[in-house]
Amino acid sequence: MNAYILSVGDELVLGQTVDTNSAWISAQLSSMGCDILAHKTIGDDQLMIEAAIREATASVELLIISGGIGPTEDDLTRQALGTVLNTPLELNDAWMARLDEFFKARGRKMPETNKIQAMIPRGATMLDNPAGTAAGIRAKIGGCEIFSVPGVPKEMKAMFEAHIRPYVKPLAGGAVILQKKLNTFGLGESWVAEQLGDLMKRGRNPSVGTTVAGGMVSLRLNARFESLERAEHEMQQTEAACQTKLGEMIFSENDTSLADVVADLLKEKRVQVATAESCTGGLLAKMLTDIPGSSSYFKTGFVTYSNQAKYERLGVSMEVINLYGAVSENVVEAMARAALRLAKSHVALSISGIAGPDGGSPAKPVGTVCIGMAFQSPDRIVQAVTRTFNFPGDREMVRDRSAKMALAMLRYHLLDKKMPF
Amino acid sequence: MNAYILSVGDELVLGQTVDTNSAWISAQLSSMGCDILAHKTIGDDQLMIEAAIREATASVELLIISGGIGPTEDDLTRQALGTVLNTPLELNDAWMARLDEFFKARGRKMPETNKIQAMIPRGATMLDNPAGTAAGIRAKIGGCEIFSVPGVPKEMKAMFEAHIRPYVKPLAGGAVILQKKLNTFGLGESWVAEQLGDLMKRGRNPSVGTTVAGGMVSLRLNARFESLERAEHEMQQTEAACQTKLGEMIFSENDTSLADVVADLLKEKRVQVATAESCTGGLLAKMLTDIPGSSSYFKTGFVTYSNQAKYERLGVSMEVINLYGAVSENVVEAMARAALRLAKSHVALSISGIAGPDGGSPAKPVGTVCIGMAFQSPDRIVQAVTRTFNFPGDREMVRDRSAKMALAMLRYHLLDKKMPF
Repeated sequence: MNAYILSVGDELVLGQTVDTNSAWISAQLSSMGCDILAHKTIGDDQLMIEAAIREATASVELLIISGGIGPTEDDLTRQALGTVLNTPLELNDAWMARLDEFFKARGRKMPETNKIQAMIPRGATMLDNPAGTAAGIRAKIGGCEIFSVPGVPKEMKAMFEAHIRPYVKPLAGGAVILQKKLNTFGLGESWVAEQLGDLMKRGRNPSVGTTVAGGMVSLRLNARFESLERAEHEMQQTEAACQTKLGEMIFSENDTSLADVVADLLKEKRVQVATAESCTGGLLAKMLTDIPGSSSYFKTGFVTYSNQAKYERLGVSMEVINLYGAVSENVVEAMARAALRLAKSHVALSISGIAGPDGGSPAKPVGTVCIGMAFQSPDRIVQAVTRTFNFPGDREMVRDRSAKMALAMLRYHLLDKKMPF
Repeated sequence: MNAYILSVGDELVLGQTVDTNSAWISAQLSSMGCDILAHKTIGDDQLMIEAAIREATASVELLIISGGIGPTEDDLTRQALGTVLNTPLELNDAWMARLDEFFKARGRKMPETNKIQAMIPRGATMLDNPAGTAAGIRAKIGGCEIFSVPGVPKEMKAMFEAHIRPYVKPLAGGAVILQKKLNTFGLGESWVAEQLGDLMKRGRNPSVGTTVAGGMVSLRLNARFESLERAEHEMQQTEAACQTKLGEMIFSENDTSLADVVADLLKEKRVQVATAESCTGGLLAKMLTDIPGSSSYFKTGFVTYSNQAKYERLGVSMEVINLYGAVSENVVEAMARAALRLAKSHVALSISGIAGPDGGSPAKPVGTVCIGMAFQSPDRIVQAVTRTFNFPGDREMVRDRSAKMALAMLRYHLLDKKMPF
């Protein structure tokens, strides 16, 4: 089955809003085996909508239209559908009753303009909207099935699940496309690509590509096969091959973050972590507490942004700061040891660096970041490791990479493995 | 001048990547007075690209194509352009020399496949790419000028500025569309709309609408006039009218954040701030240090996530915690006073709340957040104010709103105004 996705809205065609619906719908349809021919975005113009519907229905078996079925005079998708179908709009009593109820429940009178939301072209089918007041419309033109849904992403997604997925699933029939992402952190894209070798060869199926985002190098696996069973099997094989090449370099799949993974390890091993941050200003503590239930492993964090604060809060000696500089392995070691002792935690992470844009020097340019980790060895002796990194990018990037690198150090520590970088 | 935007790439049409280029290009073109007819997205398929070029060039005066001019066999835009123009591809010597240089500078031999990036249809013009190895192509079909640029946003934007803007600017001629955003925080969308009254009437030009994102209610002003001068003048008038209605409720315009505004006030008034956070886990300190130069106003932050940490780090008495609960105005007052004293700052902000998903109770449901602020009055006496809020949404939203509300409280304090909510 091939498909066409049409987005309607002035805010989209003027570039005031980025169209995320089309990508979402495409990903759903292609995972079910649909071929997507095109996305098209047009403004709130009835003639343009009519022309786009005619163009699409002449070339595909499935047309999804998002947007243009709200209550205002700008919303013209239903009128355009009526014109192309050559039928008048009719009031749908069932949806009218729903609208009345909706407004009654909120103690408000329904504005007369909202009545249009209960109207659909004669002969078309009304689609229940579980998340809003705009009913969707399903109709057929020639060999093309049309689903018209609201542009609000939440409503669009709810209606896709309720009406479009059940329709497409048994019919799609084409190749199934499965996608998976495997995430690594800490090594460059070219290094990762070198490890993967032949797995990245063009034309391989499942294909393996790499993308970089937020400092992570991710492998993108795409499998395209005639059946779901085959696609899942081949995907598994390829994933195992990637695992063989990269081992624990792969810390998660899909959208699971480094903090998620570290949180799971901390919970599993009942380890408590404390933080002492300078240039990241609380970002590391924030990442560690992004996760529900973080109170089981995180109790205390210090944000010691100034030298004075490092001395007063953590007891880092001014001599050490003056001798080695605030951005030094000596200072982060002292910070980590102090945080461990004061917070009575099992591990402590510390960060001090130059996030920029100012504060760099030839010896310590912007992006120079020292990270420390103090921890109790099994015989209760406190040990510390420290590292110096040079992160590229602007202030936000340097801070983000610094906090993630501290999490990566903690992950390898919890896995009891040597960090490979 | 009317325009059409074409995006080429399998990753776009499969929904693996959201197309942000089209929105960006549209916003630029419409601010210069172009009418955008449509965006279309298609895969890496030469016949589809040819058909889309034919469709667009038949109906508009300007076609921008992004994507499909990289070095791999998937990149087919130049071939499609050649076919529609009915001319062969020719090697462009100038760009070939640039490519050679590019690889030489990196000590690498140019892969043979990269040669395709120096080829353009005979009679077309090569467009310099200041940010990458893919040269752009400019050509004309009938009355339509075509610009083909890479899909990589950074390269696309650089080439838009270098080649497309200078071409469009003197020709666009149509209505100029100016956009502006005015940001408020702390009050609901309907309240803001009520204050604005007639300014939000449909059909008004400039139009005033509201949107909600990240807890901010923003006014979106759109002015559409024949000349830039007129548009700017009318925009100014409407902005002033909004200011009259909302006063200091408007904290910034466009993309200036609440933290940016607070940072400017702190610097201007030479005020130092400290933080003591529980449920936000460092997010407030992170926001305050997002800004370059934050070391002038921020020295120390405490992340006291557990009760024990509140007691040990800040000296909040366990009796108070047990009597009123960790999420109470009594506790945030004690936290703020302690942070002020320990950090020797002029102001201190504190936050304790229930971010969820667990930890709520009937008396204090998820979203209950207490915020405290301690500060020195002019006679050096320490004062404190506290507030309790109930924020909607999930963990991330509650934490985000809590930190922003603390910033909003600080902003009104620094402005020496009563907070209107």
